[in-house]
Amino acid sequence: MVSLTPSSSYSLAIDIELPNRCGKLAQVLEAIAKVGGSLGEIELTERTLKITRRVITVDAGSQQQADEIVAALEAIEEIKIIEITDRTFELHKGGKISVVGRIPLTCQSDLAMAYTPGVGRICRAIADNPESVYKYTIKSNTVAIVSDGSAVLGLGNLGPEAALPVMEGKAMLFKNFADVDAFPICLAGQDTETIVETIKQIAPVFGGINLEDIAAPRCFEIEEKLKAQLDIPVFHDDQQGTAIVTLAALINALKVVGKTIEQIKIVINGAGAAGIAVARLLRAYGAQTIWICDSRGILSVQRDDLGSQKLEFAVSTSGDLAKAMEGADVFIGLSAPNVVSPEMLKAMNIDPIVFAMANPIPEIQPELTQDIVAVMATGRSDYPNQINNVLAFPGVFRGALDCRAKTITTGMCLAASAAIAKLVESVDKENIVPSVFDPLVSKAVSAAVIKAARQEGIATL
Amino acid sequence: MVSLTPSSSYSLAIDIELPNRCGKLAQVLEAIAKVGGSLGEIELTERTLKITRRVITVDAGSQQQADEIVAALEAIEEIKIIEITDRTFELHKGGKISVVGRIPLTCQSDLAMAYTPGVGRICRAIADNPESVYKYTIKSNTVAIVSDGSAVLGLGNLGPEAALPVMEGKAMLFKNFADVDAFPICLAGQDTETIVETIKQIAPVFGGINLEDIAAPRCFEIEEKLKAQLDIPVFHDDQQGTAIVTLAALINALKVVGKTIEQIKIVINGAGAAGIAVARLLRAYGAQTIWICDSRGILSVQRDDLGSQKLEFAVSTSGDLAKAMEGADVFIGLSAPNVVSPEMLKAMNIDPIVFAMANPIPEIQPELTQDIVAVMATGRSDYPNQINNVLAFPGVFRGALDCRAKTITTGMCLAASAAIAKLVESVDKENIVPSVFDPLVSKAVSAAVIKAARQEGIATL
Repeated sequence: MVSLTPSSSYSLAIDIELPNRCGKLAQVLEAIAKVGGSLGEIELTERTLKITRRVITVDAGSQQQADEIVAALEAIEEIKIIEITDRTFELHKGGKISVVGRIPLTCQSDLAMAYTPGVGRICRAIADNPESVYKYTIKSNTVAIVSDGSAVLGLGNLGPEAALPVMEGKAMLFKNFADVDAFPICLAGQDTETIVETIKQIAPVFGGINLEDIAAPRCFEIEEKLKAQLDIPVFHDDQQGTAIVTLAALINALKVVGKTIEQIKIVINGAGAAGIAVARLLRAYGAQTIWICDSRGILSVQRDDLGSQKLEFAVSTSGDLAKAMEGADVFIGLSAPNVVSPEMLKAMNIDPIVFAMANPIPEIQPELTQDIVAVMATGRSDYPNQINNVLAFPGVFRGALDCRAKTITTGMCLAASAAIAKLVESVDKENIVPSVFDPLVSKAVSAAVIKAARQEGIATL
Repeated sequence: MVSLTPSSSYSLAIDIELPNRCGKLAQVLEAIAKVGGSLGEIELTERTLKITRRVITVDAGSQQQADEIVAALEAIEEIKIIEITDRTFELHKGGKISVVGRIPLTCQSDLAMAYTPGVGRICRAIADNPESVYKYTIKSNTVAIVSDGSAVLGLGNLGPEAALPVMEGKAMLFKNFADVDAFPICLAGQDTETIVETIKQIAPVFGGINLEDIAAPRCFEIEEKLKAQLDIPVFHDDQQGTAIVTLAALINALKVVGKTIEQIKIVINGAGAAGIAVARLLRAYGAQTIWICDSRGILSVQRDDLGSQKLEFAVSTSGDLAKAMEGADVFIGLSAPNVVSPEMLKAMNIDPIVFAMANPIPEIQPELTQDIVAVMATGRSDYPNQINNVLAFPGVFRGALDCRAKTITTGMCLAASAAIAKLVESVDKENIVPSVFDPLVSKAVSAAVIKAARQEGIATL
């Protein structure tokens, strides 16, 4: 198996002491290169007549490769490894977000206004006019990121504590890309009714609910119930967020190959929350032919093991993923690592579009597809065409909060997709989505969402 | 009734245009003074040959007085009021806290480490070793401030939305005074079981639970159940927080009058969460004679309407609050505005100590007690001797989090009280508690809490 390109997700800071002699650093770097490590910064921290000390940043493609890099260094004579720091673990220490005050608190009169007795006047005002909670509290700008830890990234049911680093990361992204205050809520229980009831209980503080990493099929029921019972927008990022960015990427990928949505055959591998939601949004956009596969093969009317969401997309053909992909124009992977082979891609229609979005390891490694596909995209930040939900959810909530939408509709999602796609000025095979760091993205998305919400009568401001 | 001293809780910013003529500003200020407004800053924002424009900050003692100030200004000829801003409402707009990222997020490699794919490694590590959630997430420094809005300040059952400004204020105080990240959770329901269940569900993210403004008697049951079922510290600030600062203040007030805890008679008015908890902590500290009154009078063994918490303190004497206060050394009010008269204070023992802590309006206005009592304290920030929970809860949680205490014991609370009392260097009748802005407070409290936790075997770090 070809190793993934080294990335900063496996990044080591190697603090090393070596003899101050010509060629010694070269020897170290060569040893790292031999096992495939990718060199970043090399910092000189000490130099005497006898030794030099440096901190070398090295990216690896996997834990195994990281171990190999260390072993290669240990094998070099006269080298002293002082400390090896895993930069990713280092970064996460103590968590990634903080709750801070927005107003000064330095004297008695600050306290008297912000806290007792002054705050009592605000409480009274909200009790007298409940709608003013939006004016005088954080509610108007605050979103709960709720997970039960049952489907953490592509890693499975790791539980609420192990889900927390993802939710904190999401909160950072909300703030960074759309100035939304988001707070992680990881639930101890995984029962549908418990989750719905808990979210309803904590809803008063929040202006929106972002569901995250909740396994299918319970996520569908949770989302439906909450949408029916809450008067704030509910969004399941694994569903609508993924669907919005996938459609945006597909709109531009189709421009690259000169095909239209109506004429193509789309194969989606993965019939979980994301797979079903992507299929629904593509259908709403005009897709006529969508085949979905789960781990047992094509969702077919001949199967008797399909729940209602899967039945919605059942086709008459049976077979496995390889069969489904024959003649397909688009493959969308929302499933598991390495389930697609180059041969399967070769059986697709001319100019195949492949979105291998399993996280963190895609359905097929991009290195294997270079000569086969017309457009290749993944969910990873370290390859071109990252189909990343961060293109969607910050702007979607920014828009929904700003126009105080009571829900998020399919029309708002379609508008978000179109806005994202439109931001790419010169579309080509390595440029089908904007950069996540393009500051226009969340602005364009929120504007599009607000416009759609107003047209549909969903906006209340 | 004597009006409360003007404070910044009713603070107006009056933007006013007046003729540029000798004596005109004096006329304005005199008009404000006549109705009792307290002048703050006077800012000159414009001056021409004909006019001057100024923003005048005026504190009032009540909404009524604020209205009178405006009316007085409107009555002055040639004066143009441009805008009157209520500074307290202005301050609360958009809420008082924000959730921010702690690490940079400016390039792909930041994203790859903080979010996918790097974050997946952290999730795995926590799934493999659950205790590491304290190391790699916000849990180790994060507290939930949970209220059902059933007893907001002294204002009653205002519901979760109206409680939110208080919880946000508390979160600010946590950050400001002890660098604890706290987040407000206001619950839609007020049923005991629902509250317990919801808090258990959201517990994975938090290193501690601070209950707030939950009405008695349900608050006792909620606290007990959570303490039994959660492995993180649970603290009901209205109970333990109030008790800690009240005891701290009493320790020093007794020094002022030269009495000891064992010899005094203490009357507590208010048998809610705070009243019962204060009585319990004073008893643990050595108080022998504690009479508690509720709205029906003395908690007496002759009464048949007492729940188990009230029965715990029932005495043989019956009667009303006035009767209870005869010959008492200490009055502690945790009840309602204006329920104590100067006559009742005069019936107390020599050198009476009065803590009138109802919020925002005390049991008796300090202006009425000046010649009667030896020591007077309130819960307000705009009088001397503010018995404010902010002296306790930030340091208590700082200590509990830092030593990873699994609970908060009476011993830890007593240690916190002693630490607060000890910080006042020269105790006198107007100096029985340290300033809430003394940076040593939370440090001293957390150190005392950690020491007590270690002695009791509660600390796990």
